Amino acid sequence: MSTASKMLESHPQPLGEIDRVKLTASIDACAECNQACTACADACLSEDDVDDLTKCIRTCLDCADICATTSRALSRQTGYDPVLTKAVLEACVTACKASGEECARHAEHHLHCRICAEVCRRCEQACRDLAESGNRT
Amino acid sequence: MSTASKMLESHPQPLGEIDRVKLTASIDACAECNQACTACADACLSEDDVDDLTKCIRTCLDCADICATTSRALSRQTGYDPVLTKAVLEACVTACKASGEECARHAEHHLHCRICAEVCRRCEQACRDLAESGNRT
Amino acid sequence: MSTASKMLESHPQPLGEIDRVKLTASIDACAECNQACTACADACLSEDDVDDLTKCIRTCLDCADICATTSRALSRQTGYDPVLTKAVLEACVTACKASGEECARHAEHHLHCRICAEVCRRCEQACRDLAESGNRT
Amino acid sequence: MSTASKMLESHPQPLGEIDRVKLTASIDACAECNQACTACADACLSEDDVDDLTKCIRTCLDCADICATTSRALSRQTGYDPVLTKAVLEACVTACKASGEECARHAEHHLHCRICAEVCRRCEQACRDLAESGNRT
Repeated sequence: MSTASKMLESHPQPLGEIDRVKLTASIDACAECNQACTACADACLSEDDVDDLTKCIRTCLDCADICATTSRALSRQTGYDPVLTKAVLEACVTACKASGEECARHAEHHLHCRICAEVCRRCEQACRDLAESGNRT
Repeated sequence: MSTASKMLESHPQPLGEIDRVKLTASIDACAECNQACTACADACLSEDDVDDLTKCIRTCLDCADICATTSRALSRQTGYDPVLTKAVLEACVTACKASGEECARHAEHHLHCRICAEVCRRCEQACRDLAESGNRT
Repeated sequence: MSTASKMLESHPQPLGEIDRVKLTASIDACAECNQACTACADACLSEDDVDDLTKCIRTCLDCADICATTSRALSRQTGYDPVLTKAVLEACVTACKASGEECARHAEHHLHCRICAEVCRRCEQACRDLAESGNRT
Repeated sequence: MSTASKMLESHPQPLGEIDRVKLTASIDACAECNQACTACADACLSEDDVDDLTKCIRTCLDCADICATTSRALSRQTGYDPVLTKAVLEACVTACKASGEECARHAEHHLHCRICAEVCRRCEQACRDLAESGNRT
């Protein structure tokens, strides 16, 4: 059980309509994606072909910031606001899709882009799953 | 001219369809709102009626994180992606609206909530104006 | 092997004097501590005795921000600067110590504070170990 | 009067030994430096000589993160901890010095680096002044 999951279980407020497993998966995926995108942007900076990677670096920096914010917003349960959660998840899905596609374009040449593309896609899927579970209820 | 405006003018890449004045206004409004919401959440923590302010604190913390991320994403021009910009602006408008409304409920009792509500509304409007200017082009 | 560890291995730049295992441990511990402190601050907000927890909330918010920044700075290898790394690690050790001690004061009454105190102490130790390994070389 | 200054004045807790003018100056300087460094890193990415600017980009990214965290930590007064404030200010001074020096090396060729170097130095000085005012009391 991840720390995010333990923190969620020990929260005094009941989760209500939110799927706990999907919520934890999104919190953890966003934290992982923040780290991977930060590291990938930096690894790109050290590559000989950095001038071909500038869009990739920019997209990774945006994705890192948005994932960091999403992981935090999802970690909060007090005064839960489904409209805000949905808007944040949609921005995160968009950022992960953009970053995943850009990294995938360089996946053959750079292992860090291949790893980062996979992390972005997992995070995109986790946020999509959570957003859709909210719609159903 | 604000520093954000000077940095924008000195960027090697042309802005294209984006309205420079509205872009700068949003970057600065988001930075101001990040600070005001961080300070308001903390001021609420020091109030005697903190137990009435917990939703306000949470909404301010979310809004601070989202505004910080939006200010950064808007400060980047390399590999500009209008879809991502729009998604981030929409999340920011939603967060500022939620935080502005919650702070407004406490504006009579707490000056910091009154100031923060005004800052949130200005930021909401600036982001809305920028998002709409993008739609027109 | 964590994603942080895989990203580090795929970085084009050699690590030089830095201990890879300790570096990865610190990156992951800081990310975990950012999440735990964010969640603990929010869980405290939902407790009936929130007015006894305001210092704990504030310390957790500071620790979350500092851990987020430390995790990112440690994830970057390009143009490595040992002086900056040391200063960031020292701020992080100080923040984790403060937050760990404050959470420990409430550990008997609130499980989230107990879990968070443990996470803070692990992160403090990981950052201390990394900072000391740098001093030796 | 800046928003940070108004928020500080409306805080229910007295400032104690802290110099209000210097505190506000540091909060605002850190927020400005976060923005300038974020924008400078991105402008560097769009330059033809990006391969000469990779250390500058990395240093700006670190400085942006540390300034963002410092601005937030300084905006909080609840449960004030002088030891933590001092450690954060020292990390910020170190980051601003590194980023200011690196940007200064490119100031002749790139206006965004010249502006950013000035912003970093002002922020370094503001944080140094605040840290020293704390030592005196």
